[in-house]
Amino acid sequence: MPTSDPLGISGERFTVRYHLDGPEREARALATAIGIEQTVELPEAAIPEGPIRDRLVGRLDSFKPLPSGRFEAAISYAIELVAGELPQFLNVAYGTISLKRGVRVGGLDLPPGGFAWLRGPRFGTAGLRDLLGVPDRPLLGTVVKPIGLSAEELADLAYQFALGGMDFIKDDSVLTDQPFAPFAERVARCAEAVARAGRETGRRCLYVPNVTAPAPLVGERARTAKRAGAGGLMLAPGLAGWDALRTLAADEHLGLPVVMHPAWLGPSVAHEAGGLAPSVLFGRLPRLAGADACIFPTYGSRFSFTPEECREIASGLRDGFGTLKPSLPIVGGGVTVERVPELCRFYGNDVLLLLGGALRLRGPDLVRSCRECADLVARSATAPGRPSPSSS
Amino acid sequence: MPTSDPLGISGERFTVRYHLDGPEREARALATAIGIEQTVELPEAAIPEGPIRDRLVGRLDSFKPLPSGRFEAAISYAIELVAGELPQFLNVAYGTISLKRGVRVGGLDLPPGGFAWLRGPRFGTAGLRDLLGVPDRPLLGTVVKPIGLSAEELADLAYQFALGGMDFIKDDSVLTDQPFAPFAERVARCAEAVARAGRETGRRCLYVPNVTAPAPLVGERARTAKRAGAGGLMLAPGLAGWDALRTLAADEHLGLPVVMHPAWLGPSVAHEAGGLAPSVLFGRLPRLAGADACIFPTYGSRFSFTPEECREIASGLRDGFGTLKPSLPIVGGGVTVERVPELCRFYGNDVLLLLGGALRLRGPDLVRSCRECADLVARSATAPGRPSPSSS
Repeated sequence: MPTSDPLGISGERFTVRYHLDGPEREARALATAIGIEQTVELPEAAIPEGPIRDRLVGRLDSFKPLPSGRFEAAISYAIELVAGELPQFLNVAYGTISLKRGVRVGGLDLPPGGFAWLRGPRFGTAGLRDLLGVPDRPLLGTVVKPIGLSAEELADLAYQFALGGMDFIKDDSVLTDQPFAPFAERVARCAEAVARAGRETGRRCLYVPNVTAPAPLVGERARTAKRAGAGGLMLAPGLAGWDALRTLAADEHLGLPVVMHPAWLGPSVAHEAGGLAPSVLFGRLPRLAGADACIFPTYGSRFSFTPEECREIASGLRDGFGTLKPSLPIVGGGVTVERVPELCRFYGNDVLLLLGGALRLRGPDLVRSCRECADLVARSATAPGRPSPSSS
Repeated sequence: MPTSDPLGISGERFTVRYHLDGPEREARALATAIGIEQTVELPEAAIPEGPIRDRLVGRLDSFKPLPSGRFEAAISYAIELVAGELPQFLNVAYGTISLKRGVRVGGLDLPPGGFAWLRGPRFGTAGLRDLLGVPDRPLLGTVVKPIGLSAEELADLAYQFALGGMDFIKDDSVLTDQPFAPFAERVARCAEAVARAGRETGRRCLYVPNVTAPAPLVGERARTAKRAGAGGLMLAPGLAGWDALRTLAADEHLGLPVVMHPAWLGPSVAHEAGGLAPSVLFGRLPRLAGADACIFPTYGSRFSFTPEECREIASGLRDGFGTLKPSLPIVGGGVTVERVPELCRFYGNDVLLLLGGALRLRGPDLVRSCRECADLVARSATAPGRPSPSSS
């Protein structure tokens, strides 16, 4: 047996930056334990000597204090551990150790060439802008709802939204295949309504149905949506699995933009002593899985995210990450028309503002409400060349 | 349009018991908001009058203080909202509201007849005991590992474990389809080794490979495992999605016991102010999805669960839940041989103790170490008829 490379390990590694509770001595011991836990999962004395111990156990590459008083341990792993599988990447990064409190995934660093088996977003922000023909201003979207309306009623809403100048219209995340508006009928009618409005206005708008579904049905719903003329697909990986998202994004035959919805994932970012940094869960992971855009609730909404967390998420979606394209932040959660200028300043131009209920409260003329809001967004754009405030 | 039932709603409802931060006035307001958020997701003033408002908005059925100082709001939902889909059940129960801090899913109540589309565990604890021919004592299992060994080396371990009297041998959760021991070869060799040992001892033992995999490959791995003679299938829904677990359990052609692994799910139970109660995440949800057993780290292990949390999880797996069969708690996370009697007292007989590294540290004769441990388990069984202490 050759001594140099008996396991056929390439030497390519990825790195997880764990944030750990102190004191320092305990954090260092925990860092060592994580490298074992996430790989060979054996007591120290039972780890075989040789290449398993030397090359497969996670390697503590750096350890440093953080301004928060916690410690960052950068642990690198051989790429062969993940076998070209996204669920196994998640597992090595945080699977078992997620069950120990006090360990947070603060950051991820890809191998220098990225993962050959993860191409990331097919469209990304630039590709979505190309599809829409909107080169630089903030984008504007809304939601067909509520559940209980018929497919025809939902499609009529979509028509009015598209006439009013929306760039993006998505299904409410609670719409799947209920009897009130079955999936195939709803998607066909809504896509047709948006296309009809587009012929009248000459503007483009993406209708994005929700394909979050039982595992055996996700692909079928996506193909149904594609045939009906949908402009993208929305899926919540917290409900349907991260690899369902990756599978949609990687599907050449679909070739549609994929939008991630954050349902179910709140507790994974809610406490600094555990879980994942918002920039990882709503930024890095969606890009790894290939999401072209990710929805999250903005600060100041009816949810619990702070400005700093929102800035981090936007950064996780937009800033350099291997060779993966930037994805578009979609912010919602109760955005009001009045907040449009503020949110455009905060997030910069590369954002999509999602207004749901707010558009419904401005009176019965939905088309006019949408137009007013679209005008406000256009006026709120950052001047070209000025950097996005939230990235600075 | 008939006024009585224009949406075709049956009247069957399920209930989510949310635990909310006080003060009481705020908790009550939040409870009302949850019923809207998880269904129509519109501002109060924009919710259509009539059956959507009356029958689809979540209904606050009870509200009471908890001993902890928090409040329990029982909110019921029309079953039509979930469209017979497990991901959508998760979504209605906790999807969007998971993004608001301070809301915890404390309990779930099924409709009186259960969900017709979720049969739950096919085997459950009693079925697993039948497969093993072990009517009442605690069960004992271990793990083939570490990653980096060849399929032949892992199979040799499995052979020794089975000779030593293990009831259950599972893949380490980090083993998927790495080049060191590719899935099909590993599973075939391990299953063969366990069967060979069984012919020598006359005892039964289930070999349970890990089929957590990319979404398009889970079914294929499960069928490969079935053909190779595996005794069950393990999957981590945090990595591969809850509906992948359900799909495996519901597959008539597979007809194999399904074991849930808890990877990735730690942060969802880690903080009382949010997430899900351990009894829900590691008890009720696995049973809904059809898991016959669920692995979790016991108190006093190298993970962070308390005795009370472990008691709750065991209760969530074993106690009455509609018509669903009880599932088997599998406790691991660093169980030592010395703790076997204590853990048998704590969990009672309906438990499987999973010893990994501990068996490897007792010297080179693995078969003997396993036999000693199996003897200790047999001696530690609760006398028949005595109730399980952890359920009392």
